[in-house]
Amino acid sequence: QVTTLPEYPEVYAVVNKLRVESVVSVEGVVRLRPTESINADMSTGAIEVAADCVSVLNSVTRSLPFPITTADTVKEKFPEEVRLRFRVLDLRRPQMQSNLRLRHKVIKHIRRYLEDRHDFVEIETPILSKSTPEGARDYLVPSRVQPGTCFALPQSPQLFKQMLMASGFEKYFQIARCFRDEDLRADRQPEFTQLDMEIAFTSMEDMLNLNEELMIHIFQEVGDIKLPKCFPRLTYTEAMNRYGTDRPDLRFDWELKDASDVFLGSSFKVFADTLENGGVIKALCVPGGAKVFSNTDLKKGTVYAEASKAGAKGLPFLKVMDNGELEGVGPLVSSLKPEKKEHMLEILDAKAGDLILFALGEQSTANQVLGRLRLFIAHKLEVIDTSAHSILWVTDFPMFEWNSDEQRYEALHHPFTAPNPEDMNDLPSARALAYDMIYNGVEIGGGSLRIYKSDVQQRIFEIIGISPEQAEEKFGYLLECFDMGAPPH
Amino acid sequence: QVTTLPEYPEVYAVVNKLRVESVVSVEGVVRLRPTESINADMSTGAIEVAADCVSVLNSVTRSLPFPITTADTVKEKFPEEVRLRFRVLDLRRPQMQSNLRLRHKVIKHIRRYLEDRHDFVEIETPILSKSTPEGARDYLVPSRVQPGTCFALPQSPQLFKQMLMASGFEKYFQIARCFRDEDLRADRQPEFTQLDMEIAFTSMEDMLNLNEELMIHIFQEVGDIKLPKCFPRLTYTEAMNRYGTDRPDLRFDWELKDASDVFLGSSFKVFADTLENGGVIKALCVPGGAKVFSNTDLKKGTVYAEASKAGAKGLPFLKVMDNGELEGVGPLVSSLKPEKKEHMLEILDAKAGDLILFALGEQSTANQVLGRLRLFIAHKLEVIDTSAHSILWVTDFPMFEWNSDEQRYEALHHPFTAPNPEDMNDLPSARALAYDMIYNGVEIGGGSLRIYKSDVQQRIFEIIGISPEQAEEKFGYLLECFDMGAPPH
Repeated sequence: QVTTLPEYPEVYAVVNKLRVESVVSVEGVVRLRPTESINADMSTGAIEVAADCVSVLNSVTRSLPFPITTADTVKEKFPEEVRLRFRVLDLRRPQMQSNLRLRHKVIKHIRRYLEDRHDFVEIETPILSKSTPEGARDYLVPSRVQPGTCFALPQSPQLFKQMLMASGFEKYFQIARCFRDEDLRADRQPEFTQLDMEIAFTSMEDMLNLNEELMIHIFQEVGDIKLPKCFPRLTYTEAMNRYGTDRPDLRFDWELKDASDVFLGSSFKVFADTLENGGVIKALCVPGGAKVFSNTDLKKGTVYAEASKAGAKGLPFLKVMDNGELEGVGPLVSSLKPEKKEHMLEILDAKAGDLILFALGEQSTANQVLGRLRLFIAHKLEVIDTSAHSILWVTDFPMFEWNSDEQRYEALHHPFTAPNPEDMNDLPSARALAYDMIYNGVEIGGGSLRIYKSDVQQRIFEIIGISPEQAEEKFGYLLECFDMGAPPH
Repeated sequence: QVTTLPEYPEVYAVVNKLRVESVVSVEGVVRLRPTESINADMSTGAIEVAADCVSVLNSVTRSLPFPITTADTVKEKFPEEVRLRFRVLDLRRPQMQSNLRLRHKVIKHIRRYLEDRHDFVEIETPILSKSTPEGARDYLVPSRVQPGTCFALPQSPQLFKQMLMASGFEKYFQIARCFRDEDLRADRQPEFTQLDMEIAFTSMEDMLNLNEELMIHIFQEVGDIKLPKCFPRLTYTEAMNRYGTDRPDLRFDWELKDASDVFLGSSFKVFADTLENGGVIKALCVPGGAKVFSNTDLKKGTVYAEASKAGAKGLPFLKVMDNGELEGVGPLVSSLKPEKKEHMLEILDAKAGDLILFALGEQSTANQVLGRLRLFIAHKLEVIDTSAHSILWVTDFPMFEWNSDEQRYEALHHPFTAPNPEDMNDLPSARALAYDMIYNGVEIGGGSLRIYKSDVQQRIFEIIGISPEQAEEKFGYLLECFDMGAPPH
């Protein structure tokens, strides 16, 4: 972009010694490039600077560990450790620049939407605080002023925001830093940032609507992407039964089906026994899967390995051949009388060329096995439209899950989540007023309505085995709010 | 605001038992109040709700530790410990509501100004990080993954923002949480939030202008207050000499004067000796102060005590009486020949009724003593216009201060502050390209241009006694940037 002129040999001398990525100051005349030099692919490709004077503000004195290019080959060619080691250089790459700028844009639009359209107040809550009850380890900060005691870094501003509701800030939000001392995973870091919000006097319906509007707005503003006006909703039970997971990826429509009644009184012993013992037979039809996976792969290969990881002890399968006949596990094929076979194919909407996978046993295990296979195979077959944006709600989570190691109930969300008022008579199996937002198979958000009545909170603590003394010790400040006029939120 | 109707005795029964601050849901008809009940002082004072139905969402079951009133008497009547103990209630008070909402509003306008008018990018930097070089203790967070090692909570995002400059984010800002493990003071907490910003390829002039515009905008938008278009500027030396502090409160115009030449060869031995030993005689004229402070107060009372705190060993003073005669320290009065007296009164612009205070010794001590008295007496005499907004810059700070305990130089700001290019030949006494923003006598902001050249940085480290190995250990990642093309910033 900068041209040296024969009149200024000293400029050429400077430029000639320059190494890439050096910082220079150029004075000169902006002029049209000669026609043959015009680069139509560049926004500034028609002009150049004829330099009168070039001074080096800072020169690069080392060889760069990787090139700073527009093409995103650096990510493939250089290991992450090298990129992180030279983070300053890595962030100069256009892709990384764009990532951080996109992040800023998203957060900017979130803030403005909540501030301008809904009068939310952003309130910063402390980082040096007391331990909170989320399900991960706290980072601890020893106090110098009170030796032997520690601050905890917040896993989320949960207690603070509930207290803000009781303080009369009816619409609170915060772009909040959270800290969890868990082992690292690709999607888990020691610290992360979340949009944290809370509203008083709200219903779950209003909360979901607000968040739908917010997401629609952000996708539109930042990505020019139209999300549907109302997000689909699945209850937790539906999601588990139909997709084998509470965060289904709906970019493809394969569904798990219950094939139990096909096999009632079947001569295929494993299936018949399962049903007799109160289990279920669930099935997944993989369109066009019959020819993709060899029988060996299904019996011992990667597909089987994947099923095992989810707890399957075997992987019964059937293939619908071109002639309509079934192939697969021998005794299973021969056990199916024609009308049962028709019934099964109908339930599964299975056609010639399809593969049918079975999972059996307890409902939850069977769901989990097929849910895992559903994702694994879809990725393998590349049936997922990676340009799609599938967003949905999963609602009606159970309040508790049973920890069989410790023989006790645990709060699935957190112990302040309100139970569904319809389920107050059987709290241990109550549904929670809790919801998750799922985007392309990833949980990207979630929340719940909170308990705001002392007696309900006490009952929940009892169920999860927190004594009144422990509750007072851990959540005293919050519990007090209930007696000082906490609003529903 | 809610009225019960005789037709609904059950509503009355509920309302009658209600305790203040309970949370209720009311259904009813909004109607005009009877003329005699209209309260013109309330924005909704002309209407009321005639209730059909009142239900208690959450009742207050305890007596409140203090009333939640509009009048700000709670602050006076209840100790801070009680208010903090019941923080949830305290935050319901209108004053506290307004404080947090004002804070939100200020930050909102800061963000939008920087984003919309100047294309700044907000980038979050890590909280779990390495130790940084500010002058306070770090909070440490032991790592579970690497036992024996610790994260440090950042005292500011200093290193990160300098690295972002080298990464090509030319206009960075962040509303950043900072942590300093110092002893608590009224204006110092373990964690606090600052507007953190950095610009590449800038001059100090541009930086000051941008911040002036920002402040003018915020004061206008949030407080409807007009700040001057250009903030006054004082160099550090001027500020110290004229006001005895680097954060002068200019809401009142008293100035320290150098009276040394009045006392050259004086018969008042203490003054003469001081000058002979290279010291100075500085004086402060307190308009109308002659009758306010008794001689005893000046010799042994609160005024003297205040001077002592700043290191004064005595407090010589003179009063200009109504007849123009001087009174005060006897030998001082008698030592002043008429022309010297006239000269002194002229320098100090002292008139009948004024009080003149002296401080002597080293320039810095004398300044400090009178700077302290200037503030103390102004508050006592209530000459400060508390509705005024005095804002100014103090510039040209020294790069280093001498730590006489450790017999070495310390960086006054931080070791990355760039020296004034005019002073490169005598770095230890160089002026820094650093500036503070002072509002009503409080330092509310500050910054500096940074070193971006390796050799300059090395020389600074040498002066403050940081070896190349220590520098590498502490600031390695930053120093590397200098060799990878860091821009001026």
